[in-house]
Amino acid sequence: MPYNSAVLGGSGYAGAELLRLLAGHPEIDVALVTADSNVGAAVGDLYPSLATAYPELTYGVVDPAQLTGLDLVFLTLPHGQSQELAPQLVDSVAHLVDLGADFRLPRAEYEQWYGEVHTAPELLDRFQYGMTELYRDDIVTARHVAAPGCYPTAASLALAPLLADGLVHPTGIVVDAVSGVSGAGRGLKATSLFAEVSDNVTAYGLLDHRHTAEMELALTHVAGAPVQVLFTPHLVPMSRGILATCYARPAVDGLTTADLMDHYERFYDGEPFVVVSERSPSTKATMASNSVHVTVRHDPRTNTIVAIAALDNLTKGAAGQMVQDANLLLQLPETLGLPTTGLMP
Amino acid sequence: MPYNSAVLGGSGYAGAELLRLLAGHPEIDVALVTADSNVGAAVGDLYPSLATAYPELTYGVVDPAQLTGLDLVFLTLPHGQSQELAPQLVDSVAHLVDLGADFRLPRAEYEQWYGEVHTAPELLDRFQYGMTELYRDDIVTARHVAAPGCYPTAASLALAPLLADGLVHPTGIVVDAVSGVSGAGRGLKATSLFAEVSDNVTAYGLLDHRHTAEMELALTHVAGAPVQVLFTPHLVPMSRGILATCYARPAVDGLTTADLMDHYERFYDGEPFVVVSERSPSTKATMASNSVHVTVRHDPRTNTIVAIAALDNLTKGAAGQMVQDANLLLQLPETLGLPTTGLMP
Amino acid sequence: MPYNSAVLGGSGYAGAELLRLLAGHPEIDVALVTADSNVGAAVGDLYPSLATAYPELTYGVVDPAQLTGLDLVFLTLPHGQSQELAPQLVDSVAHLVDLGADFRLPRAEYEQWYGEVHTAPELLDRFQYGMTELYRDDIVTARHVAAPGCYPTAASLALAPLLADGLVHPTGIVVDAVSGVSGAGRGLKATSLFAEVSDNVTAYGLLDHRHTAEMELALTHVAGAPVQVLFTPHLVPMSRGILATCYARPAVDGLTTADLMDHYERFYDGEPFVVVSERSPSTKATMASNSVHVTVRHDPRTNTIVAIAALDNLTKGAAGQMVQDANLLLQLPETLGLPTTGLMP
Amino acid sequence: MPYNSAVLGGSGYAGAELLRLLAGHPEIDVALVTADSNVGAAVGDLYPSLATAYPELTYGVVDPAQLTGLDLVFLTLPHGQSQELAPQLVDSVAHLVDLGADFRLPRAEYEQWYGEVHTAPELLDRFQYGMTELYRDDIVTARHVAAPGCYPTAASLALAPLLADGLVHPTGIVVDAVSGVSGAGRGLKATSLFAEVSDNVTAYGLLDHRHTAEMELALTHVAGAPVQVLFTPHLVPMSRGILATCYARPAVDGLTTADLMDHYERFYDGEPFVVVSERSPSTKATMASNSVHVTVRHDPRTNTIVAIAALDNLTKGAAGQMVQDANLLLQLPETLGLPTTGLMP
Repeated sequence: MPYNSAVLGGSGYAGAELLRLLAGHPEIDVALVTADSNVGAAVGDLYPSLATAYPELTYGVVDPAQLTGLDLVFLTLPHGQSQELAPQLVDSVAHLVDLGADFRLPRAEYEQWYGEVHTAPELLDRFQYGMTELYRDDIVTARHVAAPGCYPTAASLALAPLLADGLVHPTGIVVDAVSGVSGAGRGLKATSLFAEVSDNVTAYGLLDHRHTAEMELALTHVAGAPVQVLFTPHLVPMSRGILATCYARPAVDGLTTADLMDHYERFYDGEPFVVVSERSPSTKATMASNSVHVTVRHDPRTNTIVAIAALDNLTKGAAGQMVQDANLLLQLPETLGLPTTGLMP
Repeated sequence: MPYNSAVLGGSGYAGAELLRLLAGHPEIDVALVTADSNVGAAVGDLYPSLATAYPELTYGVVDPAQLTGLDLVFLTLPHGQSQELAPQLVDSVAHLVDLGADFRLPRAEYEQWYGEVHTAPELLDRFQYGMTELYRDDIVTARHVAAPGCYPTAASLALAPLLADGLVHPTGIVVDAVSGVSGAGRGLKATSLFAEVSDNVTAYGLLDHRHTAEMELALTHVAGAPVQVLFTPHLVPMSRGILATCYARPAVDGLTTADLMDHYERFYDGEPFVVVSERSPSTKATMASNSVHVTVRHDPRTNTIVAIAALDNLTKGAAGQMVQDANLLLQLPETLGLPTTGLMP
Repeated sequence: MPYNSAVLGGSGYAGAELLRLLAGHPEIDVALVTADSNVGAAVGDLYPSLATAYPELTYGVVDPAQLTGLDLVFLTLPHGQSQELAPQLVDSVAHLVDLGADFRLPRAEYEQWYGEVHTAPELLDRFQYGMTELYRDDIVTARHVAAPGCYPTAASLALAPLLADGLVHPTGIVVDAVSGVSGAGRGLKATSLFAEVSDNVTAYGLLDHRHTAEMELALTHVAGAPVQVLFTPHLVPMSRGILATCYARPAVDGLTTADLMDHYERFYDGEPFVVVSERSPSTKATMASNSVHVTVRHDPRTNTIVAIAALDNLTKGAAGQMVQDANLLLQLPETLGLPTTGLMP
Repeated sequence: MPYNSAVLGGSGYAGAELLRLLAGHPEIDVALVTADSNVGAAVGDLYPSLATAYPELTYGVVDPAQLTGLDLVFLTLPHGQSQELAPQLVDSVAHLVDLGADFRLPRAEYEQWYGEVHTAPELLDRFQYGMTELYRDDIVTARHVAAPGCYPTAASLALAPLLADGLVHPTGIVVDAVSGVSGAGRGLKATSLFAEVSDNVTAYGLLDHRHTAEMELALTHVAGAPVQVLFTPHLVPMSRGILATCYARPAVDGLTTADLMDHYERFYDGEPFVVVSERSPSTKATMASNSVHVTVRHDPRTNTIVAIAALDNLTKGAAGQMVQDANLLLQLPETLGLPTTGLMP
């Protein structure tokens, strides 16, 4: 019998993608879905793409009492709402998988990068950071998961093999990344309008984008020593997709691209969602899939390493990784319900 | 044990979409795939999106001897190649599903609209036109199928309920449709370049687009009397998707939108891939799925009926319908391997 | 010495396009610009594209007293604001050019199609409808102008030559058109978000879009007899551009495409912004220009005429036509400050 | 009386943009235009956007004899053709402005980065590198100009103020840039197809893109000492636009963003096409204009400088800079015929 789940915040883009993936998941049912401003609307009216999968489902309000006893609650809520809600849920539902930033960072880092006091710091220990490829063993034994952000997933998976073996200096790392605009969510702002995004590329969050903290956290975990990253995100005219192009300085002599490619293939050997290849990764190859495509180069001329990762920000960068985390929490096969083939063209 | 299939012409867009769908089909395996100019290339190099599904598959040449005994051969070849190849295949493989125009029309209509002599007219009777919703009973008992074009599928499913019951005049029908550029295939032409397609809409094939013949064929089949259609296709700046907006004059008095909606719901009752709704169909709701979304209106002011259908030209309009046909030919559940949920955003 | 003008509502897309055009106009200066929610912002901060042209200009509030004595006031305001403001301006400024729907239609048609009472019906006679090619003589002698909507300009210029000479029946006309999303303005709504517009086409305003009334008005003016139009607009994934594909039934026998092309060339002979050609018009060819590209066909098979027009909805369909109107009002050369070359690619 | 010019290679995208700009230039006429595969075609048929400006112009073949005595010949030819043609033109026409890479680099650098022997090395001294803002004095006194590439213009103008005053180390510089696909020209390749570019971002030319040499050349010229750059270009789904995000390490202590902004404003004081602002540059703000928008930041956390530039690759990055160079060569006002306002939305 399938597990029963709820999706809180299911009218946003990550929520809709989660509903799409769960529609094809054989072991997780969606018992209820909530929304904020869209309460009462049919899922199929807001997302006609989901009309066949959820013909009867309607957005409700968040009511913790209704959630008691559920096997799984997914949270894809606006920033800050998870920490308000979690105290009522951590003990009453079997598992929480939260996409908010609320439980990803230690309290100090959270308060530094988000510029606000954490209202439920005592629960931080109850959530395991859910970057599956780098924290799998910890996730399997956890109860609740804080799923990572889209950029940190791309950047961390691009750089992890280098830092895990001390092949690069832990400082001076640059992550230059681009994202499709669905990463900004379904909120109404002028910068997300088609007429402003089309034919346009702009860097934003210069120097202090909050995802920097997560990248440093994950890579420090891998490196075993403090890692420092300068991160520049850009908005590009596409709906989905993240490409992270990362630069690092070698810490050992004599590296070649061939060595690095071998190293990446070994590091990710057996990973069902990581495609290591000499091909320069393209976001479209990962579209609508849970795959992340990775490559690496050593430039002998400038003695710099370039590592690149591509993924779909809504799938591997959000809802897909949430399902991957859920599969681990529920002791299901990790790949259940998660496509690896992308959509080209 | 799954059926064994081949995909001839698997390096084009319809072929790639077919490979994507078959990667998730539990009862059909891909034994071999061919290409024209890309022979020797790995599928995963041409379409990195398929790298995880076909890690070992490489494009080969078409060799009819190699195909003998296969359960199923899919043909997604450039125009005209199917009629050259079919004579060597119709008796040596169990089933052919051809996406070419070669076996869709009677000889006279083919030669009129395509302006060329048919080279295998004796085989026309061996292929059943494969528009599943309108010819299901004939497909189930057929051996080979000629899968319909993308525009005819959209227009015919939008208009069929009207013509099946004599609600509109069979002449004076206008089909005004738009298509994403993947419909033009992967062939290299200036009109398919990003820089020419973006920010651009143009009508093409004015008055004499070849798909007109197919629409008239399918709708005449439904109406039981000759139907005449004026069809205007337009290229719009998107990769996938067709929207057909169709205009017809009522043949009976007193029609209302509510009547028509009821009629459409009854006509398509039980169809797994047809979504009838008062919502104005959007192509994105059908993206990457085999669904077609349909609506209808009666305008009392001008006494005109407007019927609209949306679908993904590469899925329901090509590869998806081919799989749907194959499921029928193989007596498998018609929906096997075919997603109904679209990709939004 | 250049004329002094103001732009009311200059923070929307039509307003920004007007500022762009006026930046290159040798005889019209922009003395002040107003906005609603963006008061106090620098024009160059909201539209960095305009930073070099208006380094010092800041959005102010609308204050009729400040406008007294100006040669020209352009109004690109949200719907309904023009009729509130006009009573204070019609006598105190030399010329008004209003892009609102407020003064385009007779009172009865306005109240029918807009579903609301007109609050300044006594001023309707003070405004001349500003579709330059069809009402030039009336505009030259007018004081104030109500500039037409984007769709009506495209549809009316596509169909006018047919109706002017009684070549088609005045009823049974279908206008099927597509528009880039800038036509919806800079207002924040989910349907204008990049992630919802990309890869998407949807029909909207089915049967009762308000621009229908304007098309019927302009074409009735041309035909000298009541014209009835069924209009279906669609949103397509581009920022700018309108393409109107229009269908009409011949009222005379023996028409050919060659006859019609000749007729269109004569009808638009000498028009600086109308390009008549056998080429199927493309919106991109008109991008950022004040040109409208037109073609026509007669289909002998179905005895239907297809007429197509393309234009940039923000230029010829809004700000460009406003400048063209202003040139006429000020007795300046009609083409002053108005580019005819489009942006390809 | 205007100067007489020819455009060789006027059927490509840079050529078409040049024709667009020259249509609005009061002092340069286009006497003839050539093409390769499009000989005999009307300019207005290939680019309907130009139909009003060049109603009679048809593409001809390149015939050096026909060019003799012209005031100006613009070359926007496929790579390698300029060095074949130049020997016949350098003495017979008053001025050449070449967009090819052929005469931009010293022979050794050319042969190293382009991997081929230069066939007209004796003419290299006859061409002045035409990056206007950094080489103006040399251009004014030159006869012929080799106009820079699109990426080098963006990267060099972003970084020049830092290197001119020794504020950063000349090595360890990273240029991470994105470009619209028109930069790849009108040539037919699968990677330029709409269906492959849309929803897609990919890095290309990893480690060894040829424009690296030009960036190092221009920045070394500015720095007075050898500069080394690692350059990673990416293709993004837009037609026009380049954004270069550049990283460099400070060579002096105590720098702040405010200091750097002041420095940039002084460095570019009086430059008509360089907009220095704290706004993060967006490509769309520069679309169809000759402007380049620049900003700079110092990150105290990682002690890194980030400098960003945006421009339209076909205008300031190609045809616009060619006109700017031509204006200098002809002693005309440098800004003649060159718009500074971009196209938003």
